[in-house]
Amino acid sequence: MKIALMNEFSQAAKNPIVLEQLQAVGHEQGHDIFNVGMNGDNDHRLTYIHLGIIASLLLNSKAVDFVVSGCGTGQGALISLNAYPGVACGYCIDPSDAFLFAQINNGNALALPFAKGFGWGAELNIKYIFEKAFGGERGQGYPTERKESQVTNAGILNQVKLATAKSFLDGLKSLDPELIKTAVGGERFQQCFFENCQDDKIAAFVHPFV
Amino acid sequence: MKIALMNEFSQAAKNPIVLEQLQAVGHEQGHDIFNVGMNGDNDHRLTYIHLGIIASLLLNSKAVDFVVSGCGTGQGALISLNAYPGVACGYCIDPSDAFLFAQINNGNALALPFAKGFGWGAELNIKYIFEKAFGGERGQGYPTERKESQVTNAGILNQVKLATAKSFLDGLKSLDPELIKTAVGGERFQQCFFENCQDDKIAAFVHPFV
Amino acid sequence: MKIALMNEFSQAAKNPIVLEQLQAVGHEQGHDIFNVGMNGDNDHRLTYIHLGIIASLLLNSKAVDFVVSGCGTGQGALISLNAYPGVACGYCIDPSDAFLFAQINNGNALALPFAKGFGWGAELNIKYIFEKAFGGERGQGYPTERKESQVTNAGILNQVKLATAKSFLDGLKSLDPELIKTAVGGERFQQCFFENCQDDKIAAFVHPFV
Amino acid sequence: MKIALMNEFSQAAKNPIVLEQLQAVGHEQGHDIFNVGMNGDNDHRLTYIHLGIIASLLLNSKAVDFVVSGCGTGQGALISLNAYPGVACGYCIDPSDAFLFAQINNGNALALPFAKGFGWGAELNIKYIFEKAFGGERGQGYPTERKESQVTNAGILNQVKLATAKSFLDGLKSLDPELIKTAVGGERFQQCFFENCQDDKIAAFVHPFV
Repeated sequence: MKIALMNEFSQAAKNPIVLEQLQAVGHEQGHDIFNVGMNGDNDHRLTYIHLGIIASLLLNSKAVDFVVSGCGTGQGALISLNAYPGVACGYCIDPSDAFLFAQINNGNALALPFAKGFGWGAELNIKYIFEKAFGGERGQGYPTERKESQVTNAGILNQVKLATAKSFLDGLKSLDPELIKTAVGGERFQQCFFENCQDDKIAAFVHPFV
Repeated sequence: MKIALMNEFSQAAKNPIVLEQLQAVGHEQGHDIFNVGMNGDNDHRLTYIHLGIIASLLLNSKAVDFVVSGCGTGQGALISLNAYPGVACGYCIDPSDAFLFAQINNGNALALPFAKGFGWGAELNIKYIFEKAFGGERGQGYPTERKESQVTNAGILNQVKLATAKSFLDGLKSLDPELIKTAVGGERFQQCFFENCQDDKIAAFVHPFV
Repeated sequence: MKIALMNEFSQAAKNPIVLEQLQAVGHEQGHDIFNVGMNGDNDHRLTYIHLGIIASLLLNSKAVDFVVSGCGTGQGALISLNAYPGVACGYCIDPSDAFLFAQINNGNALALPFAKGFGWGAELNIKYIFEKAFGGERGQGYPTERKESQVTNAGILNQVKLATAKSFLDGLKSLDPELIKTAVGGERFQQCFFENCQDDKIAAFVHPFV
Repeated sequence: MKIALMNEFSQAAKNPIVLEQLQAVGHEQGHDIFNVGMNGDNDHRLTYIHLGIIASLLLNSKAVDFVVSGCGTGQGALISLNAYPGVACGYCIDPSDAFLFAQINNGNALALPFAKGFGWGAELNIKYIFEKAFGGERGQGYPTERKESQVTNAGILNQVKLATAKSFLDGLKSLDPELIKTAVGGERFQQCFFENCQDDKIAAFVHPFV
């Protein structure tokens, strides 16, 4: 899988710690990791609002397969990412959350708390979360005998999101353009997005902002 | 506050346990509690998909001020509720999550895991979560000196959700009508909704389905 | 109750945060709080080994009724305190742990993780833990209909500890005297101990070390 | 390693679930697993008091290298096991607890909560805990640059326990013989103990009770 990590300003200083764990697990499991948000306190400033924008761009354009996001408690990132069609973002504090979300909900994003509960040794928990989030085949249900009904509901949920939302690009066009401009302003985001984007219309939408 | 509790089929048997705690805290803190989902295994069958519909109806019509929802892990309810404009649903596993969400994000719904991690004594944790979710004034920021920026971001997030979504009723009209019919079919939901709804257009939309 | 808080060197910097929460809850619930360990990085240096010594002195002499201890993960303090007869120390990461330990085990000490999991907002969790640990009558069982068997087992456990241990003072005399000297060297410990000690033999044992 | 699992009466019904996970991890990592407590509700009745006795027998006689115990909250087992010299029992609710305890404290027992927090999917968490508790070399410190001081303190802690306790057999002889008789009465315990015991005096002590 192609997995993008994105941190906002309040926990930007933790990006190297989280990235290290994600890269270690990605290396072991054969995933490509992209670090597309802030990587330190002095970086291009993003809030969880911007994370929602870049996560939805990466996922809807199939530039990446999965997004790892978060903020202080994770709740802002969680709601922000889920505001977009094509994004199904779960919340995760331990490895079994990660496994269950992968098997039952088979969403394409996680929001993690990078400050709340993130004490000494938190890099271990983050690593174990990644191990269980990205190891093995996803969407197999848990327990497996409930796979069919779980997959059905996950599919209905995606349809509901498409029904209640404007088309992805119409939604973006309704946003304050300043939000988009800031969101897509980072060099690492742009590289990941333009090199992997598989949707010309979404690429064409982003171009004027960079 | 008016607070609605809603359980889906997989954890319907736990509704009485959760309701008891919510009523106890509501009684102590002066909130009105409405039990609008399933209250047992033999009840009118709802999935987390239906919870999103009834939560969004209750919140957008101001029939209630807050919704407590959940499912096995809580993730399905979480994404389902957040699919609607006017709903900002957080995820919560301990009392400090509840407090921080109330102060920082000031959303209007919670999704709780009613199976995962819900072992012996879980009714205590649920009670303590409710105590901290609904006690005291919300939206004061945490720590309080960050209130201004936190309130600003929460406001932008609500705007983003309005921008990316169709109008609430247009979204509902895009859903499979069978989903809505099932969602609003419960007697306790209907009573709560019609007695407290403050929006004639939303009431008019629901009427044909009951 | 008289409650003593004690921190060791690795988390000494967090003592003011924890003390503030304990004092707030103590004030609300009518307990007296004593801060008998380190209160900063430059303080008289104690490890979790020393915490076991001073906790056992305070509890066996009835100088205090309850001890709140901890270390990085809490495990070192936990085992260290439980090494002594007259000390029954539980481990606690959330408010319901604290309540259940008070009702079921009715021990007289807690070990808390002050680094692991101790992230942003951890002072809230600590406060809620104290609220549930020290509010209301202890030893009432949970659920209350199991009180009798739970109280019986807690009583047997105390007897087992007395059976497997030397007498408290004989045990202390078997320790390296340097450990005791360092353990009791703090001014705040000495004040709490000598002003509240209700056992002349234990006081006489400590005197030569100060 | 030789690892013994022991459940008491209140959570005896969960023994097969826990055993399955422990065996799976043991198989993968090359450990031998012994199931020495209750394995169902109708089994030879043990409380957490008895678990302390059989854990201390197995560990002090080097019949096994590690004990996995627990009870409803885990606190009773925790204090009961730690009542004996030669036993250093930690408490663990997530995989990183298990890893940190192995690396920092390098104890020889764990107490787990088998009711509190043990909801749906708990077998996953238990499995992940075992993976991190028993994978790789123990006692390496965390972070590794603190190994020396952590190993030193763990060694002092073991000495403290030996100093405060009677000799192991003198302690056992001070217990109510009925407790020992019940504790050692199980067939699976006896098989594990007598086939693996490496201490003739301890074996001679146990013989009259079986």
